Amino acid sequence: MNVSYINPFISSTIDTFKTMLHADISPGKPRIKEGSAPTFDISGVIGLSGDAIGAIALSFPKLVSLKIVSALLGMPVKVVGPELTDGIGELANIISGYAKQGLKEYKLSISLPNVIVGKGHTIAAPTGVPTVIVPFDSTFGEFVLEVSLKTK
Amino acid sequence: MNVSYINPFISSTIDTFKTMLHADISPGKPRIKEGSAPTFDISGVIGLSGDAIGAIALSFPKLVSLKIVSALLGMPVKVVGPELTDGIGELANIISGYAKQGLKEYKLSISLPNVIVGKGHTIAAPTGVPTVIVPFDSTFGEFVLEVSLKTK
Repeated sequence: MNVSYINPFISSTIDTFKTMLHADISPGKPRIKEGSAPTFDISGVIGLSGDAIGAIALSFPKLVSLKIVSALLGMPVKVVGPELTDGIGELANIISGYAKQGLKEYKLSISLPNVIVGKGHTIAAPTGVPTVIVPFDSTFGEFVLEVSLKTK
Repeated sequence: MNVSYINPFISSTIDTFKTMLHADISPGKPRIKEGSAPTFDISGVIGLSGDAIGAIALSFPKLVSLKIVSALLGMPVKVVGPELTDGIGELANIISGYAKQGLKEYKLSISLPNVIVGKGHTIAAPTGVPTVIVPFDSTFGEFVLEVSLKTK
């Protein structure tokens, strides 16, 4: 299974954290998601379409998402509300936007972000489309990137 | 606020239930979503991009989603697993696909569905982009359609 399309998403996540948050983050080993393992509490989801179709999700424990959005806005965000969901949605948007530049062969376009809030929710992609999960470690705490892409 | 783009999504939902599930469903009055009211337990989310960008979500109580997917597959589906999430994702996919034919002016393309599983999760669209909620009543029970679209 060739999932080399994951690389632009990994680089884009690292670059976005560096540029927007002045934070160095480390990716762990990417793996194929088996079943519908629970993700975290807050997930930014963006649809991808074009010559490949798919979606990405960035999923964070609540505390980590609050720290990240506080850093992004330069002011403390302490509760789950519009500042938080807009911040996480914007982060997912920027990461997808950069990544698609590294995937020009798919002519990807990206949707508006939706941000899912709910303790221990899971996100399922269609059976047969591999979802690659990349765990990240950061000074804010751990989070994951999930990418499902159906290439033609 | 002109949200007439909701109409093709409503018609498409009604037609899809009629064609795929031989079920008559009734839409309630569409309303603009305020804040991040909890949705139900199982949501099929699809991103939209093109000359407008956005996303739709179809959100169901667990029991309703099980009944719908059982009817869709013609076999009982009793637990939340891949049959259920694939069924709900496919339903969201078909509804989006029909709806975009009624919205040719936006040249919409649709992403892969993601299906969110989690009791009482909420789905937030970016602030400033209206989300229209349409409640539906059906023989399977109630569910909602949420559409966020940023027209240029």
